[in-house]
Amino acid sequence: MNANAKVLDSQQLLIHWQGHRNLTRRVIEAFPEKDLFEFSIGGMRPFSKLVLEMIAIAGPALKSIVDGTITEFDESFNPTTKVEILKKWDEETEVINEYFSQISEERFQEMFNLFGQYEFPIYQNVLYFIDNEIHHRGQGYVYLRALGIEPPFFWERER
Amino acid sequence: MNANAKVLDSQQLLIHWQGHRNLTRRVIEAFPEKDLFEFSIGGMRPFSKLVLEMIAIAGPALKSIVDGTITEFDESFNPTTKVEILKKWDEETEVINEYFSQISEERFQEMFNLFGQYEFPIYQNVLYFIDNEIHHRGQGYVYLRALGIEPPFFWERER
Repeated sequence: MNANAKVLDSQQLLIHWQGHRNLTRRVIEAFPEKDLFEFSIGGMRPFSKLVLEMIAIAGPALKSIVDGTITEFDESFNPTTKVEILKKWDEETEVINEYFSQISEERFQEMFNLFGQYEFPIYQNVLYFIDNEIHHRGQGYVYLRALGIEPPFFWERER
Repeated sequence: MNANAKVLDSQQLLIHWQGHRNLTRRVIEAFPEKDLFEFSIGGMRPFSKLVLEMIAIAGPALKSIVDGTITEFDESFNPTTKVEILKKWDEETEVINEYFSQISEERFQEMFNLFGQYEFPIYQNVLYFIDNEIHHRGQGYVYLRALGIEPPFFWERER
C-alpha cells in the first residue's frame, strides 16, 4: 500500500490538458459556423457558449493563481465567428503553457479562492478546468451526432 | 519554473475519481428506467451502454494493472434493470478502492498494455478511465435535458 504515491508531475498534466485542448479545438472546427452559435438540445447553451466558458476559465485562472490576485470571472468576450474563437483558443494555449509551469509543487496543495468564489486546493481547481472541458465537449459530441456529423475520435489528442 | 512539480498523490486522485463516480451514480438514478436503456440521440448508445462501458473498464483495468495480468476487455455483463446497474456500480466502487491504492509511485510511470490493446504509462491509463467517464456522463446530461429532466449539478461530487 502506498496511498501517497505521486501520480504525475505538472509537465505531464500540462501535456495531458493540451492534448484535450487539441481535441476540443477539432470539435469546434467540426461544427458548421451557424450551428456552432445556434444549435442546441433541451434548452442548453450552443457549443460556442460552452467553449467561451472554457476560454474564460483556463488562461485567466492560471494567471490569477500564479500572480496570486483574485480576479472576477469574466465572460464578456463575445465573438461572432468560428475564426475568432479559434484565434482566441490558440492564444490561450500559449497563456496556459506560460503560466502552468510556474505553479510550484507546494502551491498545488495550497488553497486558492478562484474568481473569489471557488476556494479549493489548486490541484483541484486545475483538475476542475480539465474535467469541465471534457464534460462540455462531450455535450458537443451529442450536438454533432444530432447534426449528422461524425465527431473526432475521443482518444486522438494530437494536433 | 518547476515543471517536475508533483501535482497530487494517488489518494487524492482516488478521492477525485470516486467523487466523479458519485456524480455518475446520481445521473444513472436520474434516468427513468425505460429511457436509461432505450433513449438516444443521433444514433448514439443509450446511457445504460455508456455506463456499462465504464463498469467494464474501471475495476477490471485496476485489477489487471495490480495483478500484472493482461485480460481482454469484457462487456458481457448485460443487466436489464437500473437496480442491477446500481448494484454493480457500488460493487465496483469497492474494487476500485481496494486496487487503486496498491499502485506504487514507480508503477504510475511504467508502461502497461491495458486489455492487450492500449500501451500507455499507467498514469495515462488511469486518467483515461476518469476522462472517459466524464465524457460519456456529459452525453448523459444532454439526454436528460432532452428528456426534460434537470441533471445533478456538475460540481456536486458528494454521495
